[in-house]
Amino acid sequence: MKKLINAPADVVVESLAGLAAAHPSLAVDLEQRVVHRADGPVAGKVGLISGGGSGHEPLHGGFVGLGMLDAAAAGEVFTSPVPDQILAATKYADGGAGVLHIVKNYTGDVMNFEMAAELADGVQIATVVTNDDVAVEDSLYTAGRRGVGVTVLVEKIAGAAAEAGRSLAEVAAVAQRVNDRGRSMGLALTSGTVPAAGKPTFDLPEDQIELGVGIHGEPGRQRVPLPSAREAAAMLVEPVLAEISPEQGVLAFVNGLGATPLIEQYLVYGEVAALLERHGVPIVRSLVGPYITSLDMAGVSVTLLAVDEEMLQLWDAPVNTPGLRWGV
Amino acid sequence: MKKLINAPADVVVESLAGLAAAHPSLAVDLEQRVVHRADGPVAGKVGLISGGGSGHEPLHGGFVGLGMLDAAAAGEVFTSPVPDQILAATKYADGGAGVLHIVKNYTGDVMNFEMAAELADGVQIATVVTNDDVAVEDSLYTAGRRGVGVTVLVEKIAGAAAEAGRSLAEVAAVAQRVNDRGRSMGLALTSGTVPAAGKPTFDLPEDQIELGVGIHGEPGRQRVPLPSAREAAAMLVEPVLAEISPEQGVLAFVNGLGATPLIEQYLVYGEVAALLERHGVPIVRSLVGPYITSLDMAGVSVTLLAVDEEMLQLWDAPVNTPGLRWGV
Repeated sequence: MKKLINAPADVVVESLAGLAAAHPSLAVDLEQRVVHRADGPVAGKVGLISGGGSGHEPLHGGFVGLGMLDAAAAGEVFTSPVPDQILAATKYADGGAGVLHIVKNYTGDVMNFEMAAELADGVQIATVVTNDDVAVEDSLYTAGRRGVGVTVLVEKIAGAAAEAGRSLAEVAAVAQRVNDRGRSMGLALTSGTVPAAGKPTFDLPEDQIELGVGIHGEPGRQRVPLPSAREAAAMLVEPVLAEISPEQGVLAFVNGLGATPLIEQYLVYGEVAALLERHGVPIVRSLVGPYITSLDMAGVSVTLLAVDEEMLQLWDAPVNTPGLRWGV
Repeated sequence: MKKLINAPADVVVESLAGLAAAHPSLAVDLEQRVVHRADGPVAGKVGLISGGGSGHEPLHGGFVGLGMLDAAAAGEVFTSPVPDQILAATKYADGGAGVLHIVKNYTGDVMNFEMAAELADGVQIATVVTNDDVAVEDSLYTAGRRGVGVTVLVEKIAGAAAEAGRSLAEVAAVAQRVNDRGRSMGLALTSGTVPAAGKPTFDLPEDQIELGVGIHGEPGRQRVPLPSAREAAAMLVEPVLAEISPEQGVLAFVNGLGATPLIEQYLVYGEVAALLERHGVPIVRSLVGPYITSLDMAGVSVTLLAVDEEMLQLWDAPVNTPGLRWGV
């Protein structure tokens, strides 16, 4: 798959430079590959950071801004950021009230965030590890479940809690609750292509999909014949729904993994909505679009969050980032 | 290329149903395939409609809402909506102060909007035809230049003018000025695939791009070897810049055509920004993302709008649509 890049080794830093150029509210430390709020750190506010391998844009750098993250550390494509980068992000986010680390559950990320937390002398750190992917226990890069779509929702909801002046313990608690009440599953129609590799990560026959794929192309549950959108929605919604308790309805998030166009994402959302209606589960909020991607992988994921009233208020609060923006 | 759909014939209507399900502020007339504001028409406000073939999402249905369009008519993929659909959209948008038709310059669209305007007895209609693509004069579906990226900017800026209570003549005038002062050009790395065709519209060797491609895969100026992002930015920016007079700077819009991931779009934006800086042209606003797409085509387009103070005020005004949202 062809790429619009200069040299593969420069993709991450050049893309970060473009992000900062396009959004004056953001600044980028190109040395450390950390995106942070240009007006940060915000004194007295709990700071939020996340980070991980690049290739999942807008996650995480595109979610830096008022009401969401204070800083994000960008690793190479599909490669964890090193502890020094995470430490730098922590410092950019530290307004004196502590910093929450939001970490997707991949072995390298978890280890490097732990090391950075140990290095962050004098900064109070809390950590929430997202692990919402119901497809597989353990996988190529993970002990336990992978962290995927719920990470976007954790960043938004915990970010609003921090903006509202809550303490580090309170912000960490709501982040943990979002993770615990949100579950996801995805499927791929095609592989993405890592720039440095120059060829698709995996091959899929033209008549098959990878059900339960990970956001780095990790194998899922099984390969199955290309389903209709209706069948695909059921393959994703049923396992997710089996693991949540949506007493007060759900936030339904249909996520494009990269190359799948919006016309298909909305079509899938319609199928997800119809299925939830048959289950008697009301959708009280929704999100449709490419928010946690896997380069140019074709496919979608579905995340369902069993919301409560507090989460809804925090979800609706103003946010001003390149990837999510409302109320400002 | 595999698709997440049910039947090809149902893609448009099912995707529209999903759009409406995801966004309670919108309603969809599935019979006419018209997306409209659920609270519309807005009495006393100039109505704005657009429409065209599907496959360019979020354009146009995703730009219906406060501060932008009042209704949008969706044709089949890459096929103009028929006059009855456009007439229906006109009626959904008619709040008694007239309706502006925003039409991309493709022969079928222009003809069918003209017929709908004639059928719209008792509704005052003004029409602006966008034709910002500098790649080619005339093309497969067009007499004169094609309408592409500037259409998004026309819809936003004219929509804000209508929301501010301006007359039909005034709204049409600012829409026309945006079109006249904005120019675009795109390039494709791969073709998209129309669902009903099931195979790519055109073939491109792995080492070539289509420079000046249209949003339906129409041929552009020439096929050239795959350039670096830096070279690609120059290939798009130079011809565009040659045709505008950016005395007060530009709104720079880097648009993803579908399958090109955001990491590459921001990288290209960085190159565009560097190039404009060397030309001494300040970027005063920017937009980066997939806003006018061509299904799953890989590629980007660049639109530069030579702004004035009035356009900037209207650009910054609140907007609340699935595709663009701020200030509310």
